[in-house]
Amino acid sequence: MALATGTRFARWGTPPHPVGLSAAAESFLTDRLGDPRPAPARPARDIAVGSPRLGAADLDRLSALVGADGVSTDAADRLGHAAGCSLTDYLTLRRAEVDPAAVPDAVVRPASHDQVRDVLSLCANEHVLVVPYGGGTSVVGGVTATSDRPRIALAFDRMAEVLDIDEDSMTVTVQPGITGPVLERILQARGLTWGHLPQSWERATIGGYAATRSAGQASTGYGRSDEMIESLRVATPMGDLSLGRGPASAAGPDLRQLFIGSEGAFGVITEVSLRVRHLPTTSRYEGLMFPSYESGVAAFRDLAQYRATADVMRLSDVPETTATLAMSGPQGRTGQVFDRYLEFRNVAGGCMAILGWEGYSKRVVAARRSAAWAIMKDHKPVSLGSSVGNSWRRHRYDGPYLRDTLLDRGYIVETLETATHWSGIHRLRDAVSGALTQQLSRDGRRAYVMSHISHVYETGASLYFTAIVASAPDPVAQWAVAKAAAMDAIVAADGTITHHHAVGRDHMPWLEAEVGLEGMRLLRGIKGLVDPQGVLNPGVLASDR
Amino acid sequence: MALATGTRFARWGTPPHPVGLSAAAESFLTDRLGDPRPAPARPARDIAVGSPRLGAADLDRLSALVGADGVSTDAADRLGHAAGCSLTDYLTLRRAEVDPAAVPDAVVRPASHDQVRDVLSLCANEHVLVVPYGGGTSVVGGVTATSDRPRIALAFDRMAEVLDIDEDSMTVTVQPGITGPVLERILQARGLTWGHLPQSWERATIGGYAATRSAGQASTGYGRSDEMIESLRVATPMGDLSLGRGPASAAGPDLRQLFIGSEGAFGVITEVSLRVRHLPTTSRYEGLMFPSYESGVAAFRDLAQYRATADVMRLSDVPETTATLAMSGPQGRTGQVFDRYLEFRNVAGGCMAILGWEGYSKRVVAARRSAAWAIMKDHKPVSLGSSVGNSWRRHRYDGPYLRDTLLDRGYIVETLETATHWSGIHRLRDAVSGALTQQLSRDGRRAYVMSHISHVYETGASLYFTAIVASAPDPVAQWAVAKAAAMDAIVAADGTITHHHAVGRDHMPWLEAEVGLEGMRLLRGIKGLVDPQGVLNPGVLASDR
Repeated sequence: MALATGTRFARWGTPPHPVGLSAAAESFLTDRLGDPRPAPARPARDIAVGSPRLGAADLDRLSALVGADGVSTDAADRLGHAAGCSLTDYLTLRRAEVDPAAVPDAVVRPASHDQVRDVLSLCANEHVLVVPYGGGTSVVGGVTATSDRPRIALAFDRMAEVLDIDEDSMTVTVQPGITGPVLERILQARGLTWGHLPQSWERATIGGYAATRSAGQASTGYGRSDEMIESLRVATPMGDLSLGRGPASAAGPDLRQLFIGSEGAFGVITEVSLRVRHLPTTSRYEGLMFPSYESGVAAFRDLAQYRATADVMRLSDVPETTATLAMSGPQGRTGQVFDRYLEFRNVAGGCMAILGWEGYSKRVVAARRSAAWAIMKDHKPVSLGSSVGNSWRRHRYDGPYLRDTLLDRGYIVETLETATHWSGIHRLRDAVSGALTQQLSRDGRRAYVMSHISHVYETGASLYFTAIVASAPDPVAQWAVAKAAAMDAIVAADGTITHHHAVGRDHMPWLEAEVGLEGMRLLRGIKGLVDPQGVLNPGVLASDR
Repeated sequence: MALATGTRFARWGTPPHPVGLSAAAESFLTDRLGDPRPAPARPARDIAVGSPRLGAADLDRLSALVGADGVSTDAADRLGHAAGCSLTDYLTLRRAEVDPAAVPDAVVRPASHDQVRDVLSLCANEHVLVVPYGGGTSVVGGVTATSDRPRIALAFDRMAEVLDIDEDSMTVTVQPGITGPVLERILQARGLTWGHLPQSWERATIGGYAATRSAGQASTGYGRSDEMIESLRVATPMGDLSLGRGPASAAGPDLRQLFIGSEGAFGVITEVSLRVRHLPTTSRYEGLMFPSYESGVAAFRDLAQYRATADVMRLSDVPETTATLAMSGPQGRTGQVFDRYLEFRNVAGGCMAILGWEGYSKRVVAARRSAAWAIMKDHKPVSLGSSVGNSWRRHRYDGPYLRDTLLDRGYIVETLETATHWSGIHRLRDAVSGALTQQLSRDGRRAYVMSHISHVYETGASLYFTAIVASAPDPVAQWAVAKAAAMDAIVAADGTITHHHAVGRDHMPWLEAEVGLEGMRLLRGIKGLVDPQGVLNPGVLASDR
């Protein structure tokens, strides 16, 4: 089967959107990590895609439900719905090592809630597995099933509309397949915004956000996706649910919270009602430098606990600050002046932060900023001005493109995230950084591991780690060992196994550490209630039935 | 069996804490509602309490688990755990009409998580029903079971300790039986506060708040109780669960949300970790008058949607404003001056509001207040000054005491609450007020129905209704008819069946309207997983198994 090259299978960016490495970045990476052999992706045509295992009768039945153009067995389409965007997914695709059993046998595109429900009923009866596939941006194996049984990918390209906007109540009801850019275009034309801006924003879907408890870069101010969901409609093999009434309720357990974060294993989200905001009319983004990581953490904690958070709050640790300044900071003569300024202000070797405020009046934004600075002053930060903040904003979606470039260059790079209470944040950071560095620095390779606080709560914060190292001959195994060590370290240090990436298949071995033996039993029991045949996203949340 | 009189069975307040009616209040009530025959409570000794139906063997087994002093079959103790604080509960007790089958056969007081678990195992095996009983302040029949089978009340007097305070992360871990005043005393000694201040504050327990999704008077600023729970430990007949890790997680469905709000029907909460705040060092409470209810609602909506909420936000409708001013407003000559002032400022006949800000610096509180006034100015409120706000604060817990007085006087008085989106708030208020007024104004009686917005969200608000009317010969039936009509009106107007009072037994007939047929099926299924013998709080959440 002929597959076009230059598709998105093995990379985030397609030309003309690569992010190149500056000379300073090249030199930083070479100095720190060595100069690996380039590792270009093999052409997509090298990937073996087996024949669909669904018989003509099943395909006909599916077509009868969603229309003939709603069912595709095209090889490229199937391969395009075989994996997410984790390092392992990318490496597998780039190396043309895709297991044919990992490729869905058909891509099915329902056009309505009723069609979703009908497809689920059919699949439950016929024991055809169903993996819901939104933007395909999972980095935890959430859409990567391997099975002997026939399987469809359920795609939402035909369910991507805004169904309703209630401007009085500031809610918008959407179908699951709509992406952030499309939704924001529609909202912003009316002076509204959802404000949910994760790094996957360009591709991920609202259904995917809801199914994975995504958190955006501005979630300190705008809320996590799971907090911004007012109500949802779900199709399950058991039946349909419409959950959520008004802004808040005390009517028993919050059943929405069983389906939010259920990653398609308990049901398919077919409608979501989101809380939206008035579009801010003014904003202020600012770079800061703290004398140390400890002082930055203490300042961020105080901002949260004295109710003076900014909307975007991000604090890099020393390695991330070093890398950022070396690769994108001022260079040459300007760089020397900048370094001397940091020394003069007693923040050399410290940690960089970004604070961003958004609002509806310059006066209120200025007052919030000034309250924040008053609270932080004991921790002695120095402002780097708004150009640093605005530069971060401009480049906020660069990460995944940069990963393409680094993979081509022969490095591997991956991220993972966790969260814990303030009282354990340093122990957690040290444990995870240590585990990654130790596992990846082998056979003469040197790993670079950095992290930042990306979301701030009154009781704690999230930590987002990035690891880069020259690729080993088997980079999939290389990363698997490091990731396992990091997850063990997270669990031992009392962190959550995931702050906003979800569980997928990759985190399943650690889920019991999070919810306990009885929690796992409860998840399996609920799975048995809503999906008794076990056809929905098998292997996720309740695999050991 | 001799029962002491003057106990709390039939009233909220015990001397010296009655709240009397001012002459102005007397005259307002008599004018509007007539002058009913006084209806003093019958003495507690008139209440028939049957013999415990638990055999000596069962009592011995229970004593073996929790100690002999942890098991009581004392008639007064049993009767003290037979009912909550709803109007129906009070009327039943006051009229000595308690069904002997509604009185628990023993009160069991475990002293630890393990003892709770052991008691649940024993009761599940022996088919003894278990009704968890915290402060007993349910107003929805949450603790009022009537059954043929033997039943214990599980009380938490011996599980009322603070277990841990993490001042860095601002979390406090408590046992379920601790009350607000005790917790606040301990927290405030360290400069902390939970800030959860519902009208039941003097009696209700933290376990009860968690089990019912309680919301306090300052929940607009401090959050609902369900939002302030970081983690919890639960004992169920299935086994133990410890749920919640750190400030936020994306590790699948949020199983905490199955037990929060589960009213003891899914498990017994044995530990709760709460998010606490630094104790505010400054506050500003203020009364306001809006020219109309519509303008007040619009202003409250704008405050929420432009992120300028106060911590306490309360807006009375016209009837509540009228009653408040008539019964506790300025009287005589001062009253005339006040009335003329309202006319002069174009807010006569309008609606009263309370806004309260709390914080850590006068400057920040002033800036927040000034931002709020800037947003409200199009809606033309007039400040009534801080004395009105402070007076509201002083009397914030008076309601239940006042009800005692009104019941003695021969009125019946009850409250109920709901919430909906801003776009439906007027329709909902009108529908519920209309239904209550119509059902209660019968046989020559005139009902007085008033409401206020008590909690504000970006997408909507809660409505809290109070109805007063002269008692009919059968006041239990009188209220039942009115409450049913109000609930039907709530459902028809798309409100939630409860914003913060929970479901209990009283709201069960309307739960399906809230969560749907499949939602009810799911609740029953989950009940079957965690409590297969169905011994926990029978009749609540999943009664029709």
